[in-house]
Formats: sequence, C-alpha cells, structure tokens
Amino acid sequence: MNDSPVLALAKDLISRQSVTPEDAGCQVVMIDRLKALGFDIEVMVFDDTTNFWARRGTEAPLFAFAGHTDVVPSGPLDQWHTPPFEPTIIDDHLHGRGAADMKGSLACMIVAVERFIALNPDHKGSIGFLITSDEEGPFINGTVKVIETLMARGENIDMCIVGEPSSTHFTGDIIKNGRRGSITGDIKIKGIQGHVAYPHLASNPIHQALPALSELVTTKWDDGNEYFPPTSFQIPNLHAGTGASNVIPGEFNVQFNMRFSTELNNDEIKRRVLSTLDSYGLDYDIDWTLNGDPFLTDHGALLEAVVEAVEEINHIKPQLLTTGGTSDGRFIARMDCQVIELGPVNATIHKVNECVNIADLEKLTDMYEKTIQKLLVK
Amino acid sequence: MNDSPVLALAKDLISRQSVTPEDAGCQVVMIDRLKALGFDIEVMVFDDTTNFWARRGTEAPLFAFAGHTDVVPSGPLDQWHTPPFEPTIIDDHLHGRGAADMKGSLACMIVAVERFIALNPDHKGSIGFLITSDEEGPFINGTVKVIETLMARGENIDMCIVGEPSSTHFTGDIIKNGRRGSITGDIKIKGIQGHVAYPHLASNPIHQALPALSELVTTKWDDGNEYFPPTSFQIPNLHAGTGASNVIPGEFNVQFNMRFSTELNNDEIKRRVLSTLDSYGLDYDIDWTLNGDPFLTDHGALLEAVVEAVEEINHIKPQLLTTGGTSDGRFIARMDCQVIELGPVNATIHKVNECVNIADLEKLTDMYEKTIQKLLVK
Ligand SMILES: [Zn+2]
Ligand SMILES: [Zn+2]
Repeated sequence: MNDSPVLALAKDLISRQSVTPEDAGCQVVMIDRLKALGFDIEVMVFDDTTNFWARRGTEAPLFAFAGHTDVVPSGPLDQWHTPPFEPTIIDDHLHGRGAADMKGSLACMIVAVERFIALNPDHKGSIGFLITSDEEGPFINGTVKVIETLMARGENIDMCIVGEPSSTHFTGDIIKNGRRGSITGDIKIKGIQGHVAYPHLASNPIHQALPALSELVTTKWDDGNEYFPPTSFQIPNLHAGTGASNVIPGEFNVQFNMRFSTELNNDEIKRRVLSTLDSYGLDYDIDWTLNGDPFLTDHGALLEAVVEAVEEINHIKPQLLTTGGTSDGRFIARMDCQVIELGPVNATIHKVNECVNIADLEKLTDMYEKTIQKLLVK
Repeated sequence: MNDSPVLALAKDLISRQSVTPEDAGCQVVMIDRLKALGFDIEVMVFDDTTNFWARRGTEAPLFAFAGHTDVVPSGPLDQWHTPPFEPTIIDDHLHGRGAADMKGSLACMIVAVERFIALNPDHKGSIGFLITSDEEGPFINGTVKVIETLMARGENIDMCIVGEPSSTHFTGDIIKNGRRGSITGDIKIKGIQGHVAYPHLASNPIHQALPALSELVTTKWDDGNEYFPPTSFQIPNLHAGTGASNVIPGEFNVQFNMRFSTELNNDEIKRRVLSTLDSYGLDYDIDWTLNGDPFLTDHGALLEAVVEAVEEINHIKPQLLTTGGTSDGRFIARMDCQVIELGPVNATIHKVNECVNIADLEKLTDMYEKTIQKLLVK
C-alpha cells in the first residue's frame, strides 16, 4: 500500500535533521508544493534563521497557517526504539523527532490547502503560510521578525491557525484559543558582606529578603477568568553565597517567572512586585524580561469555523484552553488578529520516541481543509 | 641600635614564608630556643602538618602557651607597601605577614619563658608549648590532634594562654576568656521538578521552604549571658535552580551557621531546628558539622593572674570578651582546663600591610612573663 499524501510528506520532513535553528531543507519542500499551487514566496533570512512567507491571493480576509520546521534535539539515542530521524511506523503510529511537534501538522496544512485549491481555485480572500525554523530556539529571528516585517508594510493577517500540538487524547479534543503572558524578573538584593561571627557589622541580604519573597510566593495575583487559570508566580532560580560557611554574602540573586492571565498586564505586575519589595525596605535592582503578553481569541469567524470543523469530524465539541507554555501565537497576536492553535496529541513531544497517530494526521488534514472552506469559499 | 630579643625573633619568624600549612622552619627556631632551656621536645607530624609539644617539668600544674606558625596568604602583592615576608619597620611598627597573627606572640612567649627561667630555674609545676602550623587551614591535623594525643596518655594541660591577637586598640585592652560554639547545617529541601507553566504538576521546594527559613532567621535562640552575646543564626549560602527560567527546581540547598553561647548546646540546637523544619511539613535531608563547642574561663588562677599582669602593665583592667570567630582554644578547652587568649592588636590581621606596634610586643612579653611568675613561682 502506498503512503497517503499526508503521511508521505510528514515522513519526508521528519527525515531531514532540522534540529533548531536548522531547517535542513524542509522549507524548500514546502515552498515547491506551494509554488505549484500559485503561492508567491518570500524567503526571509534573519541571522542564522530561515523563514518564509507565502501568499496566494491579494484580497482580504487573509487567513494563514503558521508553524515551524525546526525540532528539539533527539535526546538520549539509546532510549529511542527507532532512529529519531528515520520515520518509522509502529502500531498505526508514525515515530520520529518532530512527528507531533510539528512536522505532522505542516504536512496536514500543505495537503489541506492542495485539496482546497483543487476544488476552489478561485477562493475568496487570501491564504498565507508563515513558517520559521527557530520556534524551539531563542525565538528571536523567527516568527517575531516575520510579523514585524509584515506589519511594517501593512500586510496584516486576519485569522491564523498555528499547528502546535494542542491535543491531549485525540486530535481536536483541545483547541488553544489563547496563551498566558510570561514575564521574568531578576532581582539582585544588596546587603553588606561580612563574617558570620560579626553579624552586627554585616547585613545579610537573604535574611532581609525572606519575608518579601514569602509574601510574593503566597500572593493571590488574580482569580483568572473564564479562559485563564489564576496568574502564577514561581521562583525557578536563586543563589547567594561565596561557598564559605563563615561569610555573610553581600548579594542575593533571585529570579522569578510569572504566567499571567488577561486580568493582568505587565505594567500592573511590575507595580505590584516593586511595591511588595519596597514595603520591606529592600535595597535591590531588578531586570525585567517580558517573554510575551497574554492573548485570547474568544470570538470571531475563525474560532467558529474551527470549532465547527472539529465537531463535524470528531462529533464532539473541542475544549477551549489557554494552558501550557508560550508559543509563537503571542507574536502573531500582536497583529490584533484571531489566532488559535490546533494540532495533534502532545503526549510525546520533546521526549524520546515522539510519535503521532496516523489516522489523527488524516483527521487533522480534514479539519484544516474544512476550516478554510468555511472561511474562504465565495 | 640592635633589635631587642623579641623584635629579632619576630623578624626571623616573619621572614620564613610559612603560608598554611607550611611551617617553613619556624618551629625549629623555637625548638632550638626551648631545648636550650631544658624543654623536652616532641615533634608531632600529622599528614601535611608539623606540630610540636614541648614541656619543662613533670609536676602539676601544667601551664602552656599555644600558638601557630602558619600564616594566611599574603593577598595582592601590589597592595603591600613592603614585601610581606621581609620584616620591615615603619613608624614604630613591624610590618609583615604574621606580625600580629601570630609570629609576634610566638616571639613574646619564647622570650618571656627565657627570662622567667633565667630567674626561676626551679619553678614549680611545668611549662608547655603547643605549636601547630594548621591554625589558618582546615585545623584537622594541628592542635586538635596534639590535644587528642596528650589526652590519650593522660597528660592534661591545666592552664593555657593562646597567643591569638585578642586586642583592639592596645595590647591587653581585651582578653578573650571564651569563644562561642559554631555549628553548620546543610539542608537539602526536596520538591518535584517541573515546568513553570504547569505548577500544579510540580512542587517548588523554594516556595515550601521560605516560611520555615523566615522563622529560623527571626527566631530568638537565647538571650546570651554575662559573657556571651545572644546566639546568632546566619545563612551564608543557598542555591536552587537549573539556570533555566522555565524550570521549577526539584531541590533547594540551604546552608546556615550558628554561633552559639553556653546557654545552648548542639543537641538542643539540632532539636529546635528540626522541630521548626518539621512544623512546615518539609521533605528534607540535613547534614550537621559541629565546628566547635563554646567554652568559657570565667574564674580560676589563670584568669586572675592574666588580669593582674595586664593591669600592672597597662594600669587599666582588661575587658573579658568571647566575641569573634573560633580559635584553637576550643580544642584545648576539651581538656576541661582554663584557657584564655591574649595577643596584640588585631586590626590588620589577614589583611595587606599586616603590622604590630613594637612597643606592644615588649609589653606583651612582660604580660606573659608576669603571668607565669604569678602561677609558677614557688
Ligand atoms: Zn512546536
Ligand atoms: Zn591566629
């Protein structure tokens, strides 16, 4: 039996060792298929990262698929049952690094658009593809730069499906219709170094900071809302001390990260954190890194179309969630457009023996195709 | 003008580069002088450390001087006004590494005993010298081993003057008549590692431990007493985190050090710390290091003699204090004997441009000699 078009393309992409930020030829494969469909192709290279923007049509609305060709490293090879870059089928599952995150989705997008254009060569609006190879890396030279380029020339995406593996048990059980924001603070609390035998001549920044940190970790930042869980505060890293057991350190470094809902924004977060630190009279510096603002797509044509398409295929309504880490959706959302994430089951992503159910890939292709039909048929 | 005997000997010792645990021939110089006075010499080498025990007489009471020939490293040479191992006199001060800590004291001890024996060849009791070269190092193979050896054979020191630089403004303004105990605890608090985006699947050991640590640093452990300041609790080192801002750490390492008075003992400290940690339901391991029990010499013939001797020379009573770091006095005190520390001004010790007032060395020699006279003249 021959492989189906989706399976064949997914295998081709998996066999290319595109460990982030490498693309390893994946984008050329996609570009060739899109060119044949009449897409205009614009390759955008930023530093070490290859991206492309493809568009078919000049009219609004502009619907786009977004995704990445890079994958995370394979991890320990001896724990893989199959070579990670040799796509292998075992028990109805396609195995290989990127099968679920997100070369499977890329294959589904291409085949869905091929089918749709074959039936609707004169569709209304436009179809775009925004493909990067740095989503798994530092996300500096990928989607964010492409979005900046498009916005600078006034080319705004109206609706976007990101192919991230959103599903938990079967494809389409969960659609991500937003993501929490993420902000990181690096605090350096300053004390006075000294000898532990003479604590009155020193000032231990750990001792000074403990009550403030206790308050920060127990603060209720908000209640979340219909779509978002309550904002969370976590201390992933902290460090103080010279290593010597008789030296009171002069400095205490604490890093915290907050995943925040649309009930908060980064200005409000900064104001509240600084107010807590100041209320304890600490002498400190703080550096902030805004990793992403929260976004939410809670209504609109895209959400309606995707939910309908998924329900028609699964006979069950998808759940709308905003949980999990950040994604490139946060950059696309800056265009003030509708963004949702729909992709395969994420149980094995970033792990050894990553795999995806082959039937799920076929269903995902149908979901993508049906969605475009609902949005772009005249 | 020729150097006085004390100044000449101090210079000789300083010129030997005995950076811990090196002795660099200092002890042989002392041994030769003591042999000439009729001392029995017992060199005790433990691993990399040379020590000696010298004794003149077989009767009780056994009075001993204790000290160390090793010095701390010179530190940045370009900040020294004179070469650290070339004893140099500037403005009535002898400059050089070890001038104050404690080669000056060693010279005073030797010359004081020489003068005393010249006048009192048939003194009562016995005189001892317990000299090590690892006081500035890990104090594993020095005084503690010599004391163990002496105790094992039932040879107990009754009274001991340690030559540590106890003074603040002039020699003899302060006598240390005890030292606080020191105990270090290394706590490993265990949580469950995870992704910051999924805090409900992880358990952050930092967050768990903060309230317990806050309580420990604010606890009043005791009120101290007449001789000891209140017991102090300090966190010199703590660490958690992988460095990644999106990973909740699985482990949190905290080190604390307590300097404790004779109102507490290490069993009581352990009991109270564990009880606090347990009251917060923490999952932890703890390793204890007892660096030294507190000791106190608050009465007895030695203290009386030293106070009188100092007062006769300074015309002012010395202050009795137990402040500061640990010293080898803690090991000698295990013999259940009287131990005090009397030495020169400590303002420059362990720093660049270490120096000692030359007149103070002459006075210290007089104080040592007068003390032995009060104790050992028939
Ligand atoms: Zn992905
Ligand atoms: Zn010393």
